[in-house]
Amino acid sequence: MHYARNAWYVAGWTQDFLAEKPFAITILEKPLVIWRTKGGTLHALEDRCVHRMAPLSLGRCEGEKLRCMYHGLLFNTDGKVVEIPGQELIPANARVKNYAVVERHSWVWVWMGEAEHADPSLIPPAVGLDDPDYILGHGQIDYAAEARLINDNLLDFSHLTYVHANSFQSGPEFAQIPPRIIPLDRGVRVQRWITGQPGSGMRATEEPVDTWQCYDFLIPGVLLMWSGQYPVGTAEKLEHGPPAMEDAISGLNFTSQAVTPMAGKTARYFFSWGPHCRHGDESKRDAMMQLAAMAFDEDKVMIEAQQRVIDQSPDARIMPTSHDRSVTLFNRLVKKLAAQDEEKATHQAA
Amino acid sequence: MHYARNAWYVAGWTQDFLAEKPFAITILEKPLVIWRTKGGTLHALEDRCVHRMAPLSLGRCEGEKLRCMYHGLLFNTDGKVVEIPGQELIPANARVKNYAVVERHSWVWVWMGEAEHADPSLIPPAVGLDDPDYILGHGQIDYAAEARLINDNLLDFSHLTYVHANSFQSGPEFAQIPPRIIPLDRGVRVQRWITGQPGSGMRATEEPVDTWQCYDFLIPGVLLMWSGQYPVGTAEKLEHGPPAMEDAISGLNFTSQAVTPMAGKTARYFFSWGPHCRHGDESKRDAMMQLAAMAFDEDKVMIEAQQRVIDQSPDARIMPTSHDRSVTLFNRLVKKLAAQDEEKATHQAA
Amino acid sequence: MHYARNAWYVAGWTQDFLAEKPFAITILEKPLVIWRTKGGTLHALEDRCVHRMAPLSLGRCEGEKLRCMYHGLLFNTDGKVVEIPGQELIPANARVKNYAVVERHSWVWVWMGEAEHADPSLIPPAVGLDDPDYILGHGQIDYAAEARLINDNLLDFSHLTYVHANSFQSGPEFAQIPPRIIPLDRGVRVQRWITGQPGSGMRATEEPVDTWQCYDFLIPGVLLMWSGQYPVGTAEKLEHGPPAMEDAISGLNFTSQAVTPMAGKTARYFFSWGPHCRHGDESKRDAMMQLAAMAFDEDKVMIEAQQRVIDQSPDARIMPTSHDRSVTLFNRLVKKLAAQDEEKATHQAA
Repeated sequence: MHYARNAWYVAGWTQDFLAEKPFAITILEKPLVIWRTKGGTLHALEDRCVHRMAPLSLGRCEGEKLRCMYHGLLFNTDGKVVEIPGQELIPANARVKNYAVVERHSWVWVWMGEAEHADPSLIPPAVGLDDPDYILGHGQIDYAAEARLINDNLLDFSHLTYVHANSFQSGPEFAQIPPRIIPLDRGVRVQRWITGQPGSGMRATEEPVDTWQCYDFLIPGVLLMWSGQYPVGTAEKLEHGPPAMEDAISGLNFTSQAVTPMAGKTARYFFSWGPHCRHGDESKRDAMMQLAAMAFDEDKVMIEAQQRVIDQSPDARIMPTSHDRSVTLFNRLVKKLAAQDEEKATHQAA
Repeated sequence: MHYARNAWYVAGWTQDFLAEKPFAITILEKPLVIWRTKGGTLHALEDRCVHRMAPLSLGRCEGEKLRCMYHGLLFNTDGKVVEIPGQELIPANARVKNYAVVERHSWVWVWMGEAEHADPSLIPPAVGLDDPDYILGHGQIDYAAEARLINDNLLDFSHLTYVHANSFQSGPEFAQIPPRIIPLDRGVRVQRWITGQPGSGMRATEEPVDTWQCYDFLIPGVLLMWSGQYPVGTAEKLEHGPPAMEDAISGLNFTSQAVTPMAGKTARYFFSWGPHCRHGDESKRDAMMQLAAMAFDEDKVMIEAQQRVIDQSPDARIMPTSHDRSVTLFNRLVKKLAAQDEEKATHQAA
Repeated sequence: MHYARNAWYVAGWTQDFLAEKPFAITILEKPLVIWRTKGGTLHALEDRCVHRMAPLSLGRCEGEKLRCMYHGLLFNTDGKVVEIPGQELIPANARVKNYAVVERHSWVWVWMGEAEHADPSLIPPAVGLDDPDYILGHGQIDYAAEARLINDNLLDFSHLTYVHANSFQSGPEFAQIPPRIIPLDRGVRVQRWITGQPGSGMRATEEPVDTWQCYDFLIPGVLLMWSGQYPVGTAEKLEHGPPAMEDAISGLNFTSQAVTPMAGKTARYFFSWGPHCRHGDESKRDAMMQLAAMAFDEDKVMIEAQQRVIDQSPDARIMPTSHDRSVTLFNRLVKKLAAQDEEKATHQAA
């Protein structure tokens, strides 16, 4: 697996972390236990007792601490063992790795590098479910495929014309017209105008409109996108540059999506989507979520099939197309960050 | 896997290849897509888009062509990409392997070597479901076992005495009397007379008869067998040589069977069976198919169990018996052809 | 797998070996067939025909012999082929390994070393279901985990305080007070007094008692334990040494348990448990079995989870605690015996 370790990965929705119910998830092939104290604080440790490797996620919360329920070793939030039943001395190496964990934008984020290097300013600015400006639905899907394949999918919307011809009723413009690609420090920005056409599918309009769509795809695999409809001619007037969000006349909406690599060839995909509160209501949100369920299932069918072909074709190589510029930029960035992480880890070990 | 590549493998029954419904099957560990155009023609390609390895079998038929439904690359029947949405230039290496495919005798056959070497004269002369002389039922079974083990089973009918004691009610003669084995250019011929006994099971006769049974087992794994009953004394009169088919007094029937190696330790087994139209009718055919269902399940239980023992016994070796002459002859032929294929491939690569 | 080969492994309950119904089980990664003749005798062979590796467990019993039902080879109880249908000569190497098998204490035991070295005096003295002194229930559970992890669990009862807090309602004393550990020639003896407390859970007493618990854990993985309740002060009077079984005033019971390593990371766990006939009846036995079902499921959840963590943590090492003395002693003994077995096997091969 080649992913950046010094990055924030989404472990789940905040509401799924109940007080004193340890939560198990594997990220980047590392089993983690995350638990919320009665006071509401979240902690994360390697999910493995130092004694005989029982999972701490089967353990019991005791105040801020977590007790392994196999033979009773008690762990502090920093991963150190503070009690071994029947034994006075606690060896200095009796500890597991601890992870920095932050709740923000309705997601629980885990920093997969060393906890002391965790930098919360690197958490992507997703829109939380409690954001007053948006009426959001949400969900998650487990994939039997490598996270990178889902990233690739989200980085190149030319697939909308084919994969989502039924659900989103996307026209040929996604495949024919390249979007504007802007490299970012920790990701890629993708912008496009679809001009002089009625909105498609659920967001159909009677009159033609100019539709703006813009997303940032950020390390480690987070898509943040807004789109909206504008009077015909807006794109031209702005020389195809970005419009002001508040000038949208209809269809303004936001989606936050996150791809988390789990074990080997499995990944978890989190998403929220819904209209701006001035452009829709709960029923519009529900219709959008139904559409998303259909579309994201189309993606899953294609991507899991793609994974099976890759597994059966050890010698085959990919052949990038012009639409892959965003994919290539992002994967190059991941590679660079992963290499930096490795170099840093080597220095620390030396 | 050691199988001959320059050979015709059965991919399915012709009626299962519907117009413009791409059909996926893995043969010799190669994922294939086979599709029938509206005009009825069949085409076969490697089931892998050159772009990002999505399976073409999830694609859409467009005239003679097949479009990958991930990002829209369009493939010609020779495997060349002829359209890349959003891109003018099509790289010369934008192509996948194409396979020769022929419909004959109710089966779809794929040549697993280079398409330009495909030689339809090597297609084994199976009897199709539409043959006016026979009233045939048919079916297929997927095996969690290597194709070779099914071939071995079909090459040595001494197992009838034991595996099929219940279904075919075969007597000890299969295990005790060796058949006549005749090497063929691309297979083995197996002939036997069972003399002076009433027919067994469903083909029971009131009076004793001489029963003739003859099959060719041909590369890559196709069994073509006819049998019939003759007046007692026929075998002796013919010095145990082959009788004329038209002299059979009862029980004349034909079965075509094909074993296709799929991925790793999986195989698909195709079969048809039924009486000659002068020796039976639809109800006889149905009774024979019921019997076949029972018998072929007995084989499947034994062969899949055999595969599991093989997998658990990496150091164990087989100990051939005198009944294995046909098995040994055929496997030696497969080995020779596979070696020739490899040599040819090496020459082409050099 | 590092286990002693020259040892008796439990293959099943005697009543599960029906006359002329071959029984398949894999022990130490060796597939075995065990069969009972009409006369009642048990025999065990490698479950693999010498011919083409069909499992003999799909075979047919013929007197004392076992016939492979693929092509009819007939095996003697010593593993030698005595008949090959259609062939006069039987090669000298036409044999499979035979295993010594003994029925004792309601269990069928297989000696996994060379049959000629089998020493029935090494069979652990379990209590059979027909023992007149005890009223025993019994059961078995398959584990998706290495046998060693179950052995480790049974060797260290400090886990009772945590894993079985609900079922056995074990108090903190198991984790806090170390038992007395006595090395045995082929195992470890574990003894403990729990003094001046009312019996817990189902064996609750109105008045405080001294509870004695003593088990031998014997090669290859057999636990034999008795416990009983005594008047307060007994432990002190005996200087915490063993009491006489017949002096128990209540709660006297016995459990026999056996752990059998099967293939790779799977194991089968056999157990019986029940009251002494002077300290309980069938209804008490049933209540104990219900409790056991609950408790053994708690173990299974923990141990299979432990196995998964081990599989995901190739570089992690265990950190023994003071409670692990019995575990370490026993595993060291297993290692020593396994090394002796290997040395012996090397000598024989040389």
